[in-house]
Amino acid sequence: MALLNDHFLKLKAGYLFPEISRRVKVFCETNPAAAQRLIRCGIGDVTEPLPPAAVAAMHKAVDEMAARETFRGYGPEQGYEWLRAVIAKNDFRDRGCDVADDEIFVSDGSKCDTGNILDILGPKNKIAISDPVYPVYVDTNVMAGHTGEANEAGAYSKLVYLPCKASNGFIPEPPKRHVDVIYLCSPNNPTGAAANRPQLEGWVKYALEHKAIILFDAAYEAYISDANLPHSIYEVPGARECAIEFRSFSKNGGFTGVRCAFTVVPKSLQAATKTGELQPLYPLWLRRMTTKFNGASYLAQRGAEALYSPEGRAQVRALIEHYLGNAKVLREGAKQAGLKVFGGVNAPYLWVRAPKSGMGVPPVQTEPATHGRDARATSSASWRAFDKILAEANVVITPGSGFGSRGEGYFRISAFNSRANAEEAARRLQALKW
Amino acid sequence: MALLNDHFLKLKAGYLFPEISRRVKVFCETNPAAAQRLIRCGIGDVTEPLPPAAVAAMHKAVDEMAARETFRGYGPEQGYEWLRAVIAKNDFRDRGCDVADDEIFVSDGSKCDTGNILDILGPKNKIAISDPVYPVYVDTNVMAGHTGEANEAGAYSKLVYLPCKASNGFIPEPPKRHVDVIYLCSPNNPTGAAANRPQLEGWVKYALEHKAIILFDAAYEAYISDANLPHSIYEVPGARECAIEFRSFSKNGGFTGVRCAFTVVPKSLQAATKTGELQPLYPLWLRRMTTKFNGASYLAQRGAEALYSPEGRAQVRALIEHYLGNAKVLREGAKQAGLKVFGGVNAPYLWVRAPKSGMGVPPVQTEPATHGRDARATSSASWRAFDKILAEANVVITPGSGFGSRGEGYFRISAFNSRANAEEAARRLQALKW
Repeated sequence: MALLNDHFLKLKAGYLFPEISRRVKVFCETNPAAAQRLIRCGIGDVTEPLPPAAVAAMHKAVDEMAARETFRGYGPEQGYEWLRAVIAKNDFRDRGCDVADDEIFVSDGSKCDTGNILDILGPKNKIAISDPVYPVYVDTNVMAGHTGEANEAGAYSKLVYLPCKASNGFIPEPPKRHVDVIYLCSPNNPTGAAANRPQLEGWVKYALEHKAIILFDAAYEAYISDANLPHSIYEVPGARECAIEFRSFSKNGGFTGVRCAFTVVPKSLQAATKTGELQPLYPLWLRRMTTKFNGASYLAQRGAEALYSPEGRAQVRALIEHYLGNAKVLREGAKQAGLKVFGGVNAPYLWVRAPKSGMGVPPVQTEPATHGRDARATSSASWRAFDKILAEANVVITPGSGFGSRGEGYFRISAFNSRANAEEAARRLQALKW
Repeated sequence: MALLNDHFLKLKAGYLFPEISRRVKVFCETNPAAAQRLIRCGIGDVTEPLPPAAVAAMHKAVDEMAARETFRGYGPEQGYEWLRAVIAKNDFRDRGCDVADDEIFVSDGSKCDTGNILDILGPKNKIAISDPVYPVYVDTNVMAGHTGEANEAGAYSKLVYLPCKASNGFIPEPPKRHVDVIYLCSPNNPTGAAANRPQLEGWVKYALEHKAIILFDAAYEAYISDANLPHSIYEVPGARECAIEFRSFSKNGGFTGVRCAFTVVPKSLQAATKTGELQPLYPLWLRRMTTKFNGASYLAQRGAEALYSPEGRAQVRALIEHYLGNAKVLREGAKQAGLKVFGGVNAPYLWVRAPKSGMGVPPVQTEPATHGRDARATSSASWRAFDKILAEANVVITPGSGFGSRGEGYFRISAFNSRANAEEAARRLQALKW
């Protein structure tokens, strides 16, 4: 009798975005006029067209595929050398980071990579994640059997949750206790916080002392506008011995639909066998990628390469400035409404404290939630803010509680939008009475 | 201390294609004149340009990405509905198979899917694979800890190897013993054999009796030219209760560099929890794909959709006819040289018995192999045929022993080539004296 992976049954229902969709749908059906002016600041997906340099490169790549002489079949699973070289030079060596071309593994997405990395790690690691957190880190560990069951608040046993709160600037400190694997995301989704150099140094020190591995998700690196902040964990000495870094073209080149990303696995990074012998992880990841992956699309790789051309870089810069400009407008709007706002300076996300007052709006009427946890969650301060902003400003945001228990009492505003929408959303937020 | 996945350490070094490359390199360096006329019939990668319908669709898709109004960010992780619908209709319902649109999961490759499917299966299944076999099935099970160590012949304990030999037409029979998961690949890589209806019926019967799951890899389905052969396992009643099918656009549309494939997971397919309760696998795969994948590239999906247009279908047909024409030419050449040839009728691969006579050619001189297994393997009949064909015909083939111990004594000729190369390779094979 074929057996399924029981760990999947521990997963809580994918709750956040379906619930948002459901409430928005109900609201729009009962308020058709308001539905016409709805502005979506919920999902973290880019809205602006691709940089022209990438468009031109991808047209050229398509044409190459149309002629026998220039046709490309299977490429190297790890990515084409010309792309790995331009990444290693521009994103790392030009910033003083010691990263070799062949330490870059090109893939079709950071979501895949942050999940797949668990393939090469053992089952007994103690895993630390931030709270709030990008849910993929948690769910992939649940699937891999690295956790116990979830409690009523949705927290899984065996995971170590690192609280991110206003008092630590939403950047977790290394724990007192021992952990083996740490997920860090900076600039952060959902809080918009970016780790400074001393903070990353503290983490690298901890990881080296504990022979732990940092899984550093830098998908939003391009949004760092403070010149003092590190863009890569490899700017910190010692990180080559304790960190894997994930990067993506989704949020700089707008490649969420094109699909291209990369992961850096330094050859000097080691982990232990069951018998305690240290061995490099590099050959394991190489073997994983060559066995379970067949390379990112040639078209996507040519598009990504073009982002490093002089025109491509300028166009990416303009895209980032556009979204950061939106973030600034939205920050001002939320602040003038008296809201306490974090993030939005080095990241495309604003993290806003849901006021305790002014929440007397009745929640959007929906069918009763069926899960105990959801029933509680949907009446939380995060969700009450969601309902109020939807009802009164006709703006969709994301309730912070969807990212973990420490997200409760906050909501996330995404700056991925047109400028006109961002400005209008800011005006409406500003007009809200709490 | 972070722990690695010890199961990776059981993996044998990726041996086959690196060893081929090494021998070809040595030969070319010592025989520069012969190197000029080398013809590669080794690797299973397409050579001909993409169908014009796909090229046009991908240009259009790139243009859409260049304008705000038509830009596409994240798509559904399972693939766009328009692609899933056209697949389910054309590849399944029009052939009488009961497959719903939402049972199609679009991905970036069958290699990924056949590896990733193990995510949703438990660790205690008894796994059966063919011998010879596409190495990915074996290696991904090793990585997942489903096997013990390999013996000196390269066979892993705990796996059940199903011999494919001339006497069973290279299609394995269901075993007498119980297994839980069975990999079947038809038309087969490397043997070129295609299962007929009674053979698939036998497997479905076995799977239903044993509550086993068939992982049916039909990546070469488009090469079936015998009208009586089933194209999908779902042509067999009962398969919806016991089979997952993998398909790809790599070998019909030539998408090896574009990256698009799909997997069919019927909602009626169940597997057991640890406590023996049967549950559908569909929600597990849906959760796996939405959590660890972000969709295939929009460009690739539009390209794949275009393969189903009337022009696209005709162009795919012409591509397939081209490669099958090559296969016919190569079959004739090999047969006229007195070789015993299998496959090449319903598949782009010929499976040829290496003659025992006429192998007196000294092997290509290379540095001594360092692994015991490799040292034996490289002096096998498969490798001696490789060396002879390289030296005397200047044609690169693939030694069958690289696909498993039952591949020893055979070699694979790939028909993926230009017609001129296929004809020239056939002439040279024909002229060989064994």
